Amino acid sequence: MHSAGKSWLLLTGFVLFYVIYLLFGALVFSSIERPAEDKLRRDMETLKDEFLNRSCVTAASLERFLNQVLSANKHGVSVLRNTSEKSNWDLASSMFFANTLVTTVGYGHPAPLSDAGKVFSIIYALIGVPFTMLVLTACVQRVMHPLVLAPVGLLQRCGLKPRPATVVHFLLLLVLVVLCFFLAPAAVFSLLEASWTFLDGIYFCFISLCTIGLGDFVPAAQPGQKYRALYQVAVMVYLFMGLMMMYLLLRSFHKMADLHGLTTFLQLPRCEDSVLEEDRETIMDSDPMPPPYPKDKEASKPLGSESYPSYNSINKS
Amino acid sequence: MHSAGKSWLLLTGFVLFYVIYLLFGALVFSSIERPAEDKLRRDMETLKDEFLNRSCVTAASLERFLNQVLSANKHGVSVLRNTSEKSNWDLASSMFFANTLVTTVGYGHPAPLSDAGKVFSIIYALIGVPFTMLVLTACVQRVMHPLVLAPVGLLQRCGLKPRPATVVHFLLLLVLVVLCFFLAPAAVFSLLEASWTFLDGIYFCFISLCTIGLGDFVPAAQPGQKYRALYQVAVMVYLFMGLMMMYLLLRSFHKMADLHGLTTFLQLPRCEDSVLEEDRETIMDSDPMPPPYPKDKEASKPLGSESYPSYNSINKS
Repeated sequence: MHSAGKSWLLLTGFVLFYVIYLLFGALVFSSIERPAEDKLRRDMETLKDEFLNRSCVTAASLERFLNQVLSANKHGVSVLRNTSEKSNWDLASSMFFANTLVTTVGYGHPAPLSDAGKVFSIIYALIGVPFTMLVLTACVQRVMHPLVLAPVGLLQRCGLKPRPATVVHFLLLLVLVVLCFFLAPAAVFSLLEASWTFLDGIYFCFISLCTIGLGDFVPAAQPGQKYRALYQVAVMVYLFMGLMMMYLLLRSFHKMADLHGLTTFLQLPRCEDSVLEEDRETIMDSDPMPPPYPKDKEASKPLGSESYPSYNSINKS
Repeated sequence: MHSAGKSWLLLTGFVLFYVIYLLFGALVFSSIERPAEDKLRRDMETLKDEFLNRSCVTAASLERFLNQVLSANKHGVSVLRNTSEKSNWDLASSMFFANTLVTTVGYGHPAPLSDAGKVFSIIYALIGVPFTMLVLTACVQRVMHPLVLAPVGLLQRCGLKPRPATVVHFLLLLVLVVLCFFLAPAAVFSLLEASWTFLDGIYFCFISLCTIGLGDFVPAAQPGQKYRALYQVAVMVYLFMGLMMMYLLLRSFHKMADLHGLTTFLQLPRCEDSVLEEDRETIMDSDPMPPPYPKDKEASKPLGSESYPSYNSINKS
């Protein structure tokens, strides 16, 4: 129990540090990007006023004006009147951006304008992405028992054999994830976002939880939305929980596939790369433990989970 | 050698099937999205003509016009004259989009306009993302020997001890990846893209190879670029090779960290989840192989590569 307490403490520490890292990122992004955004916004307002005060609009002047409008829009600065008071780099929006960086979702709305912002994005992601994966993995490790091992055990006690039990459990978990992380959020998004249909909501959830993050649909980006900061924080929590559940689903699939020999079926046959799995022994002079399998078995056993087509590696699909 | 041949054949088959899958995606996206894009493009041209033919431009009419311009722009349709002949959904561009979907980079320029395109994106990514990870993992498996195991062996024959040899090798590989997949491509991009600085190039390479894909910088998106289709194919090859090298780098880091006991240091202490590693035995009735470690060692050994904070899981960072 002492070990369990320590483990939970460490996990809480991880999550807490993750939140602090996001807050730190938000503060830096906000302080770097806000001035650049304000300048671009003022420039665009002047440009718009000048355009409106022209006596006649020629094709060439319209082209020049639109060119600048679209260029500013690419950096998240809109010339539309109802969006002009909304900053992309207030604390909540900056935190939202930091969150999409470290989870590799990356909607790109907004995206840093200044060179300093770009350099900081690189450094921030360089540390943040591996750390986020670490936190996600640690969280999945913690929910494996209540959400995977315990239910499979229960199904077995209900009379199911081990292999069917894993299949039934995987299907149940799939239904749960689809319901709670795709259908329900999609319904909420289609209610909260005026221009989104239910399909748009599903599409957004899928594209986000696969970390593709196209950015054609981004929540809390419409002007005049109430409790915008709270909404953005809720979406961040949704993204984190969703990515965790996607990873859990893949881990369960991986375990089920293992049990059914699917991973062996999918992996490449071993050849000269059989040394791959032995490198630990060959390049390590003082291996504290003996190789787990006798050498003759080594050649015929499936590749270790490190070298077969790893479903761990697609925890974001 | 027979096994090696079979293995290479399978890998070639994987890569070939990957290309066919991209081509298939390109054809479907192109046929679904082209009509929607053409319609929007025509609508925007009419709108622009109407706006130009107005006798006076009021603030309200400009606002309405800009609203529609920005909305169309979100879907990749620009009203600018020099971009009007360029489609986002020709074969090469559609293939580029399909590629950014399955690698989860997802720039979002372009993004599907129609509902059919959105539904197809979901189905396409659902199959494509795991398959791409499978192909990437298989490719990494193949280059592990020439790029990791052989050089480490060579360093050891040069008199280095195993642990320093892995560190030196990792640093050399890191320099190689930074040179060939960040600095060199950034220089090329800053030459080919008129508006990109060298820093923009570095930023694009980093954001892409982390699969964040913000989409504020997308190559081959400027109008009037020569050999555009060829350029897009080259970027696709770069993305694939780059992701493969990032994964290889992480695998090497993982192996090095393993050897230095870093993974043990980073993982959470085990507690009630010690059952995690035993689930294979407990839920499987006919385990063909005995557990690799004695039970007492099981409790103290580091979590298997499946359950410690897996660097495999961040193959895209």
